[in-house]
Amino acid sequence: MIRHDGRAADQLREVKIVRQYTRYAQGSVLIQTGNTTVLCTAMIEDKVPPFLRGSGKGWISAEDDMLPSANAHRRIRDRNKNKIDGRTMVIQRLIGRSLRSVVDLTKLGERTLWVDCDVIQADGGTRSASITGAYVAVVDAIQFLMDRGSIKEWPIKAAVAATSVGIFNENSLLDLCYVEDVEAAVDMNIVMTSGGEIVEIQGTGEERPFTEGEMQELIALGKKGLQQLFQMQKEALNQ
Amino acid sequence: MIRHDGRAADQLREVKIVRQYTRYAQGSVLIQTGNTTVLCTAMIEDKVPPFLRGSGKGWISAEDDMLPSANAHRRIRDRNKNKIDGRTMVIQRLIGRSLRSVVDLTKLGERTLWVDCDVIQADGGTRSASITGAYVAVVDAIQFLMDRGSIKEWPIKAAVAATSVGIFNENSLLDLCYVEDVEAAVDMNIVMTSGGEIVEIQGTGEERPFTEGEMQELIALGKKGLQQLFQMQKEALNQ
Amino acid sequence: MIRHDGRAADQLREVKIVRQYTRYAQGSVLIQTGNTTVLCTAMIEDKVPPFLRGSGKGWISAEDDMLPSANAHRRIRDRNKNKIDGRTMVIQRLIGRSLRSVVDLTKLGERTLWVDCDVIQADGGTRSASITGAYVAVVDAIQFLMDRGSIKEWPIKAAVAATSVGIFNENSLLDLCYVEDVEAAVDMNIVMTSGGEIVEIQGTGEERPFTEGEMQELIALGKKGLQQLFQMQKEALNQ
Amino acid sequence: MIRHDGRAADQLREVKIVRQYTRYAQGSVLIQTGNTTVLCTAMIEDKVPPFLRGSGKGWISAEDDMLPSANAHRRIRDRNKNKIDGRTMVIQRLIGRSLRSVVDLTKLGERTLWVDCDVIQADGGTRSASITGAYVAVVDAIQFLMDRGSIKEWPIKAAVAATSVGIFNENSLLDLCYVEDVEAAVDMNIVMTSGGEIVEIQGTGEERPFTEGEMQELIALGKKGLQQLFQMQKEALNQ
Amino acid sequence: MIRHDGRAADQLREVKIVRQYTRYAQGSVLIQTGNTTVLCTAMIEDKVPPFLRGSGKGWISAEDDMLPSANAHRRIRDRNKNKIDGRTMVIQRLIGRSLRSVVDLTKLGERTLWVDCDVIQADGGTRSASITGAYVAVVDAIQFLMDRGSIKEWPIKAAVAATSVGIFNENSLLDLCYVEDVEAAVDMNIVMTSGGEIVEIQGTGEERPFTEGEMQELIALGKKGLQQLFQMQKEALNQ
Amino acid sequence: MIRHDGRAADQLREVKIVRQYTRYAQGSVLIQTGNTTVLCTAMIEDKVPPFLRGSGKGWISAEDDMLPSANAHRRIRDRNKNKIDGRTMVIQRLIGRSLRSVVDLTKLGERTLWVDCDVIQADGGTRSASITGAYVAVVDAIQFLMDRGSIKEWPIKAAVAATSVGIFNENSLLDLCYVEDVEAAVDMNIVMTSGGEIVEIQGTGEERPFTEGEMQELIALGKKGLQQLFQMQKEALNQ
Repeated sequence: MIRHDGRAADQLREVKIVRQYTRYAQGSVLIQTGNTTVLCTAMIEDKVPPFLRGSGKGWISAEDDMLPSANAHRRIRDRNKNKIDGRTMVIQRLIGRSLRSVVDLTKLGERTLWVDCDVIQADGGTRSASITGAYVAVVDAIQFLMDRGSIKEWPIKAAVAATSVGIFNENSLLDLCYVEDVEAAVDMNIVMTSGGEIVEIQGTGEERPFTEGEMQELIALGKKGLQQLFQMQKEALNQ
Repeated sequence: MIRHDGRAADQLREVKIVRQYTRYAQGSVLIQTGNTTVLCTAMIEDKVPPFLRGSGKGWISAEDDMLPSANAHRRIRDRNKNKIDGRTMVIQRLIGRSLRSVVDLTKLGERTLWVDCDVIQADGGTRSASITGAYVAVVDAIQFLMDRGSIKEWPIKAAVAATSVGIFNENSLLDLCYVEDVEAAVDMNIVMTSGGEIVEIQGTGEERPFTEGEMQELIALGKKGLQQLFQMQKEALNQ
Repeated sequence: MIRHDGRAADQLREVKIVRQYTRYAQGSVLIQTGNTTVLCTAMIEDKVPPFLRGSGKGWISAEDDMLPSANAHRRIRDRNKNKIDGRTMVIQRLIGRSLRSVVDLTKLGERTLWVDCDVIQADGGTRSASITGAYVAVVDAIQFLMDRGSIKEWPIKAAVAATSVGIFNENSLLDLCYVEDVEAAVDMNIVMTSGGEIVEIQGTGEERPFTEGEMQELIALGKKGLQQLFQMQKEALNQ
Repeated sequence: MIRHDGRAADQLREVKIVRQYTRYAQGSVLIQTGNTTVLCTAMIEDKVPPFLRGSGKGWISAEDDMLPSANAHRRIRDRNKNKIDGRTMVIQRLIGRSLRSVVDLTKLGERTLWVDCDVIQADGGTRSASITGAYVAVVDAIQFLMDRGSIKEWPIKAAVAATSVGIFNENSLLDLCYVEDVEAAVDMNIVMTSGGEIVEIQGTGEERPFTEGEMQELIALGKKGLQQLFQMQKEALNQ
Repeated sequence: MIRHDGRAADQLREVKIVRQYTRYAQGSVLIQTGNTTVLCTAMIEDKVPPFLRGSGKGWISAEDDMLPSANAHRRIRDRNKNKIDGRTMVIQRLIGRSLRSVVDLTKLGERTLWVDCDVIQADGGTRSASITGAYVAVVDAIQFLMDRGSIKEWPIKAAVAATSVGIFNENSLLDLCYVEDVEAAVDMNIVMTSGGEIVEIQGTGEERPFTEGEMQELIALGKKGLQQLFQMQKEALNQ
Repeated sequence: MIRHDGRAADQLREVKIVRQYTRYAQGSVLIQTGNTTVLCTAMIEDKVPPFLRGSGKGWISAEDDMLPSANAHRRIRDRNKNKIDGRTMVIQRLIGRSLRSVVDLTKLGERTLWVDCDVIQADGGTRSASITGAYVAVVDAIQFLMDRGSIKEWPIKAAVAATSVGIFNENSLLDLCYVEDVEAAVDMNIVMTSGGEIVEIQGTGEERPFTEGEMQELIALGKKGLQQLFQMQKEALNQ
């Protein structure tokens, strides 16, 4: 057995997607991937950042945070350190880019979707769960805008989801949990559209560099998991 | 009908207390009071703040925050404003004092209980829900320490819970929800022990000052609600 | 003798109120309560915070600080810690609310009174002295506006003052000095109008919770002191 | 008449120096120079900054601030701007250097004198008043250490005082008040020892550069004022 | 002609690497890639971050910044915004990881190499130039440690360099300059070792997602450029 | 030999001034004074600070910083300390005042010249080198505005340059390098116009106060060096 939780190398953890988890956000999704739990919300604001004012174009802005109790060791809140954690910054830029890549921002009109991904419990794969869940929250917020007549044409071009893959003990594994992630020699995050195209790929040789062959193998493994995630998003959205 | 949600003047909203809501904190409680939802966790750290080092005494430190999506208008994260919100500061000091008042800190040993109250959804009464839920999380964390043999004697002297009362349209009401709270002429928070003694009382004449007679009436109303909250804490703890 | 400075349990410390202590603020009051000294100023700014713009209503905003040398141990300035002290935040919100409760803000017109309470020397009761002195400074600033013809109708509805009471060595005491305050089992601040109504009451069981009977006794003691403070404010204002 | 307050070009404003103005600092001096008022305190801390630990040498550290109500326009507190004002930074470094220049720090032992200069009212010349007053506070704090037996040998080598001079409407003036300072073409601060030597000289051509001849004239004027300030310090100290 | 500066699609800009550009850092390299200029320094500190103390292992920490005048529009310094730019944070983490991947940190001993990459002039590709130049600075700093006898065994396992590739007007281009980078549909950074293995790959579909086929083509193009960069590093190091 | 680098007491270090060192700033000057290297740039922004809006007057704003690797001990970046270094603040105010003193700001029109002085390598005299080099950058930026027709009349009234002088081992020395500066008993910076007038003079008795006679001697020495610096500025500008 190569994985401590008994999964096969190419097996995702169990995923649950709950919509309308909270009341006030136009999109509100709780996503669980094994023991990782993220609340992804999408809220509408009827203005855009300065660089888009007057452009007729909208924006999607993402923020990411983790509750102090999400891990075994309590995390100090960013506000008490007077700075935003570097990892947080990297992740929230990735989430924003991923979502923007599948939405036609000109059809969104001059408004911002504020996406918040707050990690309730963390067992690896929080950025992947955030993107996968946030997509569903964005669909709900956009449906809200359609229902209200604020936008005329459906602006979403494809679904987007993410997963992690990595090399752990010289095995290529899909959907790393925390203990696997920490000790992985190579770590890769793949963000894809439901059309099978890559939105973002980030591969890091944490313990050692990796060959192009290993990269191909990891990408194939990731694609397999992503097909299942797109299916779960569809089911959650009753599409 | 004096309340928009149909409650009687002396009626609490429905309360749900779920223990072990997350995995990593020694105490983890989700409390819902109507549409207000707070995740209260208690985590153990085996050291104390500088002023207690070498004293043999423990400490309980509380922090309070609210997710950006908890309200109808998205809240900007404190970290992006480079300061902690004044209201947050007031509330977290109150939570810490309330919990410390019912725990014998010398029996806790030189360790800190970090209590985090993160508001997932806010419809008024978040500080009361936080105190009421955090007490349950503290009991679980202390039970964990007892089970592990880290503390010898049960340090909790009484239960503690809180509720809000106020004067709205010249009616004295128990457990204000957001729309009542915003327009209340007088607003009072009462923190009590299960022994019927006051831990903290904060009454504010938001729209007008109030008489001693009004104060007595509000306190009586609060006590009525608190008796029910103590009962719910006991049930949640199977005591 | 129950008090180290020889006072009776129901006796205030000596109070001095000096008006026009500095030249540039429209109201400038130095208040001394025993060894506690606070400079309370009120300055007029002809604009209001964003949430009141265009409302025709005014605002009173209070800030509170303490000189580094006010105590026996030098206090580090907030600016060097990159954050505002939690206690400061709590106090300045209280001062602002207390003053706003006795002023008809619609009669003030769209302007802000900036009230600054800077503690020169601290021996307990700084927030009470601040409120009591700031009221006098506000009267002077409003008189200035009346004299200049900027406001037509006297907007002050009543005087406001504050005092502290507490239980120390099982005695209920009026107007705690620092050594009493630090060791008090119960600590209460009462803000009242000259009409005898409560603006704010904050009671805390620092060492133990307290009964309703104790609360009544403390309130009665506070009211006794407050009657004297209203008299001193009148004398200072030659009313 | 060349000065709006009727002074001669070479005349200081009236100076008052009150010792023991507050109770807790070992040295506490209120200095008034015309309408400029500064509270200068010196407090002893029995440790030194890291770069002096183990050296047997002491340190004098100065901080400077201004109350919000000190001027006709309310000043925003540094803590609310999340940064220390540049002018404050310049001034407090000057005060510290000036005081250190007349104290033998090796005789002070490994301790820090914390000097705080808080401007209560500002009408020009605050940095000069701060240095002149702070010297007296430092003498008192050092006398306290001598009396307590903490230091054996008197470490003060000379008195130090400061004044401003400037060219206003082509007249060389001593001790500029605010309206003169703001419109001065040339502005100079001179810090001297009672031995007649220069500790610090800072001359700035605010409106136009100045000649060496003008500089000589300003220095001569400053020395005249400084002789009087040294005399007043002696009288205040009963020397 | 597909590129505005006349280069072929697979052509690097001219690269210059100057060692010992400044005097005080143990490694100091100015790298120019076309109009992009970065000063890369490596300085030795004889201690490690807390998580490595006592481990016998060393660390490489990288920081990245850009002069205000590096671009056509002046950049506001991070210190004036009280926060570190998100892009800066992402880049400096990448530089650190890339350098650590080719150094055996256990052979480095308990010391830190501080690598600073300060962009003097920016015309795209600053992160690639930083990594490529910083490697040379690290070699010089490690040679300094070898010469001084501080480390016994050569800890560098391979060279590391980086380049950017992207799809611009549907052409795959090597080494994007600023105007190409801003308008690229797809943007990829590749960090490789001289052994031909991947240390980090980050591909982003800025304007549209991309296929695996496009990814392969971009990687091939990048490898071609990287072979030349390794050669230039060797020449600069006289290896 | 009184100076460790063999210079005569009244001898400047070798100075090099390179114009157009970088491409994007309208003025860009690299100045080297011995081992001190500063990049001085001047960039044009077509707006002014709030206090000048609508005045028709321009402004010159200076900022100063030092690369982490400029000294033998790595300097922590200000952004990581969340505050601007006090010394930096003092220096950048001095640079701004010095440049403004020789430019007729009304002829500049409502625009700001942003002057950035970034120290690449520091061996004493960085503020003097910054002022001397920044003047040349300002001339180039203003020439750019003249050539573009944005300003009609040449606004520069004189050249401005700076040097340091000091007393080291009881010798008066011109142009102190770092080791001299650190141990100088007296330290003076003189900013002068090419017309021979003083813009700013700052003399500090670091180790001991100094006499007026010593001051005269230092000024004479400084003037000698400044004559040479004005000559070098002219040559650099081909005037």
